[in-house]
Amino acid sequence: MADFHVNGERLWNALHHLAEIGATEAGGVARVALTDADKAGRDQFVEWVTELECSVHIDRMGNLFARREGTDPNRDPVVIGSHLDSQPTGGKFDGAYGVMVGLEILRVLTDHEHITEAPIEVVSWTNEEGARFPPAMLGSGVFGGEFSLEDGLGATAQDGTVLVDELTRIGYSGSDPCGSRPVGYYLEPHIEQGPILEASDISVGIVTGVQGIRWYDVSIRGVESHAGTTPMDRRSDAMLSAARLITAVDEIAKSRPEGRSTVGVIASTPGSRNTVAGTVDLSVDLRHPDPEELSRMNDELVQFAKSMNPPASVNQIWYSPPVEFDGDIVNAIRDSASQGGFESADIVSGAGHDAVYINRVAPTGMLFIPCEDGLSHNEAENITQEHSTIGAEVTLQAALRLADRDTATGH
Amino acid sequence: MADFHVNGERLWNALHHLAEIGATEAGGVARVALTDADKAGRDQFVEWVTELECSVHIDRMGNLFARREGTDPNRDPVVIGSHLDSQPTGGKFDGAYGVMVGLEILRVLTDHEHITEAPIEVVSWTNEEGARFPPAMLGSGVFGGEFSLEDGLGATAQDGTVLVDELTRIGYSGSDPCGSRPVGYYLEPHIEQGPILEASDISVGIVTGVQGIRWYDVSIRGVESHAGTTPMDRRSDAMLSAARLITAVDEIAKSRPEGRSTVGVIASTPGSRNTVAGTVDLSVDLRHPDPEELSRMNDELVQFAKSMNPPASVNQIWYSPPVEFDGDIVNAIRDSASQGGFESADIVSGAGHDAVYINRVAPTGMLFIPCEDGLSHNEAENITQEHSTIGAEVTLQAALRLADRDTATGH
Repeated sequence: MADFHVNGERLWNALHHLAEIGATEAGGVARVALTDADKAGRDQFVEWVTELECSVHIDRMGNLFARREGTDPNRDPVVIGSHLDSQPTGGKFDGAYGVMVGLEILRVLTDHEHITEAPIEVVSWTNEEGARFPPAMLGSGVFGGEFSLEDGLGATAQDGTVLVDELTRIGYSGSDPCGSRPVGYYLEPHIEQGPILEASDISVGIVTGVQGIRWYDVSIRGVESHAGTTPMDRRSDAMLSAARLITAVDEIAKSRPEGRSTVGVIASTPGSRNTVAGTVDLSVDLRHPDPEELSRMNDELVQFAKSMNPPASVNQIWYSPPVEFDGDIVNAIRDSASQGGFESADIVSGAGHDAVYINRVAPTGMLFIPCEDGLSHNEAENITQEHSTIGAEVTLQAALRLADRDTATGH
Repeated sequence: MADFHVNGERLWNALHHLAEIGATEAGGVARVALTDADKAGRDQFVEWVTELECSVHIDRMGNLFARREGTDPNRDPVVIGSHLDSQPTGGKFDGAYGVMVGLEILRVLTDHEHITEAPIEVVSWTNEEGARFPPAMLGSGVFGGEFSLEDGLGATAQDGTVLVDELTRIGYSGSDPCGSRPVGYYLEPHIEQGPILEASDISVGIVTGVQGIRWYDVSIRGVESHAGTTPMDRRSDAMLSAARLITAVDEIAKSRPEGRSTVGVIASTPGSRNTVAGTVDLSVDLRHPDPEELSRMNDELVQFAKSMNPPASVNQIWYSPPVEFDGDIVNAIRDSASQGGFESADIVSGAGHDAVYINRVAPTGMLFIPCEDGLSHNEAENITQEHSTIGAEVTLQAALRLADRDTATGH
């Protein structure tokens, strides 16, 4: 390992300085993509990296790269980062942590006048949250080939505002093509956004991959009837089938250690307290790290839906296959954590991240740090300074292992 | 029984003539309370009963009475009727049937120049549906003392219109006090609005009473969490508890032959497909003809709600105790059906009717005829002419038994 380390205090200050941009009264952050607050956050980042004599590159999706050159002109950069945008009532650390860790690494390297073999780049992907311009992970999605540039630029907010117009308005519509920029390795440090690390008192989560996700729209059609005059045995009650399906969906996940399932949206028609529901529509979200197991969960859902009376029609609207991260990066993180003496554990990400799309075009990995009560997308989102420092230190050492291959081999 | 009978053809024509007022393209009726269509329906009724030389009386709630005098000045009237207002997309028969049967009885008596001992009155209660001016059964409710006159006149539509203003506008704000008018017996013929009579091929339902109803607002508070990152065993999922409660509510009614239960309204917060629901709110409607059994159903609901994790808080927002109708009227209907040779069966009404409130101040009873598929509050609501005639005939004979006591005894 290199004999220099991150400055945890400086990183903590940068995180809190950044959090003042778009700060909410409840202690969170509202730095929604392509708003004035997002522009101010980007401007602050550009100012900091310019002080470090990095070059700044912006692509057509507004993805923002700060580049520090390496010694070997043939090496592609080690890219570190995440996103600077937030949910409308978001926290200080989701996304911001990854970008600020990247910044701290640039600062440490500058402090020690260390030039890596491969260039180091720090990236902030545009519109990761998708809160204003759905879908989520749009900047990295175009970069990774999931969405076309046209779809990315044309993404439209509920009020009709178009992404490219706002990108231009805030001055971050770049001229670089989106997606062809070389990436040697992509490394994304992030808060866990879940309770697992905190519960097991682990400082570093070595993210081996991301769960596969299947999303469904489910519709149940019964027969509207009068709550008072219709005997129980003459009903075709869509609400009752919905209840049975929700319970079955729960069991489909609970019967598998790594399974997850959620029904978050439900609506009944006509929505009258003295009318048996004629129609109930609901969402189903199934997740598993193993694509075959996820496929079996799908089969069980479809089977159960058919078996009810009234039955449910199940329409899969999205499938995100499980992701397995790059072995070199996973090992670099594991070795760095181990040599630093930090408690680490393998973990599968349950949330989507920019890394999922970048993984399609470059070796990619992620590192998680614990967050308080697993809370995220919430103004109360919180981490400790100790975990912040540890995550940055492990990221620094992993990045050096990847950027300075000769050095890494020696230790 | 009297040796004269209703004219089923004339009744059928009156029903369809009335149904042209407010007729909808889909074959239903939109004669919402105190609209121009309601005024036109009332005007038609007044024209018809005036031709029969009945006197017309309107009380302060706009309840409309047509009176045919009897021979005995000491007898209070036998009142027959229901309501002329409809749902916004209602059918031809709900309410209208009872008033038109009353009209047909006045016509038969006039045809045969038969003067009953007790006066006969035909009533149309104001705003039974409550579709525009909630709550339902407002005219009969003020008459029966459930609501104050002030509350009745002050009932307000969603657009801010006040009932008394519309009553005045259409010319049906009467000067008679509401509620002190003498009623010897009140007899309401109505379509069943349920499937029981049709399913068992019965022409006449002798309504012995009305189910008790308890309405609840139920709220379940779990913890919002991420659908991907939160393991199943670390969730407090309000949707899962809601599903369990809906299933339990269903079982509470199904375990009792006469029980009914419905969850018709449900809403989840934040209503996001990848967030475990933090809150679910739902409605519960429990019904039973026996107040003690209904009370046990309540206890089971409350008990189950507490037992879940996360638990549900159960708030009863309305209780309508079971109603038992007057024995004399029930017998008069039963005997009339029997002597006419019509298949009849006792039935408990699952729906609310004006009769529920009038029962508080006068001996009251109801008679049901079958309706197609049990469908009501629907433009496709339908009955057969045969059932229409039978229901009117039984009502006529029952009214005569009640109005002409001496005659009734003799047969």
